[in-house]
Amino acid sequence: MTSADIKLKRLVAATFTPFTAEGEINLSVIGPYIDYLKEKQGVDSIFVNGTTGESMSLSVAERKTLAEEWCQKAKGKMDQVIVHVGCLSLKDSQELAHHAKQIGADGIAVIAPSFFKPTTSDALKKFLGEVSSAAPNVPFYYYHMPATTGVNVLARDVLEGIEELIPSFSGLKFSGSDLMDFGLCVSYIQSHCSALYGIDEQLLAALPFGAHGAVGSTYNYLGYHVNKLLTAFEKGDLFEARKIQVLSNTLLLLLLLLFQTHLNKQLMNEVSGLCLGLPRLPVMPCPQDHSLRLVKKFHSLFTES
Amino acid sequence: MTSADIKLKRLVAATFTPFTAEGEINLSVIGPYIDYLKEKQGVDSIFVNGTTGESMSLSVAERKTLAEEWCQKAKGKMDQVIVHVGCLSLKDSQELAHHAKQIGADGIAVIAPSFFKPTTSDALKKFLGEVSSAAPNVPFYYYHMPATTGVNVLARDVLEGIEELIPSFSGLKFSGSDLMDFGLCVSYIQSHCSALYGIDEQLLAALPFGAHGAVGSTYNYLGYHVNKLLTAFEKGDLFEARKIQVLSNTLLLLLLLLFQTHLNKQLMNEVSGLCLGLPRLPVMPCPQDHSLRLVKKFHSLFTES
Amino acid sequence: MTSADIKLKRLVAATFTPFTAEGEINLSVIGPYIDYLKEKQGVDSIFVNGTTGESMSLSVAERKTLAEEWCQKAKGKMDQVIVHVGCLSLKDSQELAHHAKQIGADGIAVIAPSFFKPTTSDALKKFLGEVSSAAPNVPFYYYHMPATTGVNVLARDVLEGIEELIPSFSGLKFSGSDLMDFGLCVSYIQSHCSALYGIDEQLLAALPFGAHGAVGSTYNYLGYHVNKLLTAFEKGDLFEARKIQVLSNTLLLLLLLLFQTHLNKQLMNEVSGLCLGLPRLPVMPCPQDHSLRLVKKFHSLFTES
Amino acid sequence: MTSADIKLKRLVAATFTPFTAEGEINLSVIGPYIDYLKEKQGVDSIFVNGTTGESMSLSVAERKTLAEEWCQKAKGKMDQVIVHVGCLSLKDSQELAHHAKQIGADGIAVIAPSFFKPTTSDALKKFLGEVSSAAPNVPFYYYHMPATTGVNVLARDVLEGIEELIPSFSGLKFSGSDLMDFGLCVSYIQSHCSALYGIDEQLLAALPFGAHGAVGSTYNYLGYHVNKLLTAFEKGDLFEARKIQVLSNTLLLLLLLLFQTHLNKQLMNEVSGLCLGLPRLPVMPCPQDHSLRLVKKFHSLFTES
Repeated sequence: MTSADIKLKRLVAATFTPFTAEGEINLSVIGPYIDYLKEKQGVDSIFVNGTTGESMSLSVAERKTLAEEWCQKAKGKMDQVIVHVGCLSLKDSQELAHHAKQIGADGIAVIAPSFFKPTTSDALKKFLGEVSSAAPNVPFYYYHMPATTGVNVLARDVLEGIEELIPSFSGLKFSGSDLMDFGLCVSYIQSHCSALYGIDEQLLAALPFGAHGAVGSTYNYLGYHVNKLLTAFEKGDLFEARKIQVLSNTLLLLLLLLFQTHLNKQLMNEVSGLCLGLPRLPVMPCPQDHSLRLVKKFHSLFTES
Repeated sequence: MTSADIKLKRLVAATFTPFTAEGEINLSVIGPYIDYLKEKQGVDSIFVNGTTGESMSLSVAERKTLAEEWCQKAKGKMDQVIVHVGCLSLKDSQELAHHAKQIGADGIAVIAPSFFKPTTSDALKKFLGEVSSAAPNVPFYYYHMPATTGVNVLARDVLEGIEELIPSFSGLKFSGSDLMDFGLCVSYIQSHCSALYGIDEQLLAALPFGAHGAVGSTYNYLGYHVNKLLTAFEKGDLFEARKIQVLSNTLLLLLLLLFQTHLNKQLMNEVSGLCLGLPRLPVMPCPQDHSLRLVKKFHSLFTES
Repeated sequence: MTSADIKLKRLVAATFTPFTAEGEINLSVIGPYIDYLKEKQGVDSIFVNGTTGESMSLSVAERKTLAEEWCQKAKGKMDQVIVHVGCLSLKDSQELAHHAKQIGADGIAVIAPSFFKPTTSDALKKFLGEVSSAAPNVPFYYYHMPATTGVNVLARDVLEGIEELIPSFSGLKFSGSDLMDFGLCVSYIQSHCSALYGIDEQLLAALPFGAHGAVGSTYNYLGYHVNKLLTAFEKGDLFEARKIQVLSNTLLLLLLLLFQTHLNKQLMNEVSGLCLGLPRLPVMPCPQDHSLRLVKKFHSLFTES
Repeated sequence: MTSADIKLKRLVAATFTPFTAEGEINLSVIGPYIDYLKEKQGVDSIFVNGTTGESMSLSVAERKTLAEEWCQKAKGKMDQVIVHVGCLSLKDSQELAHHAKQIGADGIAVIAPSFFKPTTSDALKKFLGEVSSAAPNVPFYYYHMPATTGVNVLARDVLEGIEELIPSFSGLKFSGSDLMDFGLCVSYIQSHCSALYGIDEQLLAALPFGAHGAVGSTYNYLGYHVNKLLTAFEKGDLFEARKIQVLSNTLLLLLLLLFQTHLNKQLMNEVSGLCLGLPRLPVMPCPQDHSLRLVKKFHSLFTES
């Protein structure tokens, strides 16, 4: 099997952060969560403390505790644990990057700071480089998510020369709909790097552009099916690949915007049987009836497929 | 050959409007233009008086004169001439639709009015239906271009029930980057309809979602190559398909935004040898040196490929 | 009375276009409309075929017919009739400008073309200059409305040097919320020019920056009250001025966005007793119950004030 | 003197955070800074750890240290110290709110979380209420800044019923250009509350709507002049008030966007002679020549005025 084949198979679940009923982090679910992903969804890599994980609603101390537990429990079970360490504050990001290195994370990822928005790729790269310098040998991923951050810098421009600034640069999570930009990133990066696509409902669009895999929240509960999508695409069975994507999008339509983290988490609770709790403010919890409709839809779409 | 195969091959050039040095429309170029498309680019269908054709900068009388000439000269040479008849004014659109019917256009297309922006799919559909009623039997295409019009209505919602309102509904030109929406349109429309993708630099992303073809300005000068892309994709040769898309995007990067109609037209002038003139205000003409760089890039990329 | 005083008093009604029940223009209402404005609202100037007048939904021929009737009926009654001649097409704009000159309009106004959006002030000025050249001696107003046109060029940059390009330049209608830009325009223009503010609900904010008056649709039915606001402001009675603005805004809140032309027109129908008909598509007509609530609110707010 | 008069005089400086050459916080400047504001600028209130203070680039520990120093040094010198405690994380905000109470802050302010953006006023109010509950008796200010946060909720809707949810509610800092919304806020709040305007270049627009004062970064170096603007406005001398606003805006034009915190801070360094250091990443430092031009402009505009 060639390296390209291996890359194509890579599906990364962006994990939810489990909370107790009181809204405190709940480490006890993490072990079973990892087993669930591996055994039921066929997912071997995780992206923790990202957007799905509500990292921006966590304190630095909580993020450390979580990252540590994810890394420990994943040992021997997951191929790769990428810890997202991006914060608005460079200091906090550096602290988390250093910590990720100490706990043996397989990689770190950093999103653009979104309050003081860098307006040039140089400013953004400078910020990323400073974070990386606190964990110089840990594989580094740039997390591109322009619609949410409001940072309108092309990913391709961020990548230009980044391997000199960040020798451990290993790829990017591209959560944007500009596939021209994505395609140019794929062409630019070196063979040991990965371009992982991050908009779940458009995964099929990114594959012909050479995506090496995908990172997303829906792979928590749709990983099994999306793995079949990847396999079908590899074999050239576009008809099957498209069928799965359209099925999955029919569900996502109900989620309205994929990014409505609360519905997403509720669906994961129901589908997996894990008890991940409610999201934190400012994300609002999902109304009961909404949640029921969603689960019903999920089963009608995927149970016998 | 199945109907699906036929559909897949469809490449439609969005034509430029030829002007004289004085800025008046220049009908004499239209004959040679059509021959050029057919013989040199292998393009058999055209979309006239669209965005590329600067229709919004033309008077109603000019649009009629142009549509008539395109239809006449295309007779026996082109498979399909779609005339765009969208205007800000419903009255003007209806007049153009009626005229398109009289001159024997193979189809009409209508973009959403962009000054008073419809805020619901119902309002937009009502407008489209009124235009169609002036040419009831002419195949009707909805022209979706949200970033330019500022009309943020999902195409899928516009399509819902449109065949009852517009019995001649035949498909859509989708010039947007929301491929989830595009995919849902493909799934929705009936088998005699076509979903034509309209963002040239992302064509490869739309193909796995089931695009029946593409409409765009770059097919004026890249039709020959993009036809090879379509064939490669059909055969399952993704590597080749991607190579062509990336090559083409390298050129488009220089155009900065594809929608910079002036550079685009200048490139067509240079590549085809046709004399299409400059664009009209408010589109500004292309600086000489910019144009030279572009042509040089074109030849370096495509001459021996 | 000084020239500044005269300027301060200037309230310009942006007129609605009257339609018959069949949706055709209805010239017969224009005479009574003008009398109503003068006698009941104390408004002596009108801005015709603008946004309120749904000009973008009219054909060129209809705009000419309307402009002619407004000018004729206003003779001897109105101080000033400004005819808006902006179109997406430069040719159409020039035709309308030339026509406005022939019918004796007191001024012409031009909005930025909003489909092919000028990205620099130079491109926009070039377009404006070409329109003006078709009516070189007619006082020229630039109509600034960035949120609707999507043309993000500062008005102050458009004004820079405009008097050399357009010797008949006479001022601007500023329909934007950037009051720094507005204030710089006021400082820049010469004493014979006027800076008229166009966001009715923020008029009070523009006055201390030196606005010479206001153009808006609500002055059709609130002119009487807003004239009192202007007088109060002149006298330094800010308390009274603010009271009227807040009262008026309480009504406008119900209109949700002022720009919902349909509600606005319906309110004018009810308040004035004139029969202006419904708006044209793509603007949707106002639901009956909504309209009733609005009128009730109007009377409760303004009848005894 | 009436309570309204007192309110009108209130000018609040949004303080810069002083850093050493190594980029660490520099507490030693805070004492002289406060003296400078009081003695040279006539400013008696400060808003600390806000946008100007780069709070989002600071760690929670740094924000505490700074808040404490500002409160201590301001004792007996400043009328009011408002500590901004907004964070993306509710937990962090609560910790800072509780700390602000302990150090005797005169008020706390909270901006909307901008990563997971509340889409309703209810969600936002819930978040604000939870922060306030950690410092229940400390006067609470809502900090409204929609263009930066991307949270498009009207301030007026946030205020609706807020005094029941947050009994210590004391007003808002309104950094937006929608003056209709601002005016409705002024009308809504109770007499012990303040509506402070936060867009320095439009202050003159907010005054007739009843602003009780202003919070901004430029009052660090323009407080002396803007106090004269407030006095002139109070006396009804609009001519003088406008003169100062336009003069100030001429300077701000050079800053391009007021929000370019780095230029702003550099100007304060130069004008005050204080040594506040450079901004932190992701804010980029100001190029030397740019800074020199700015200072020159400042002196040419304000030295002899």
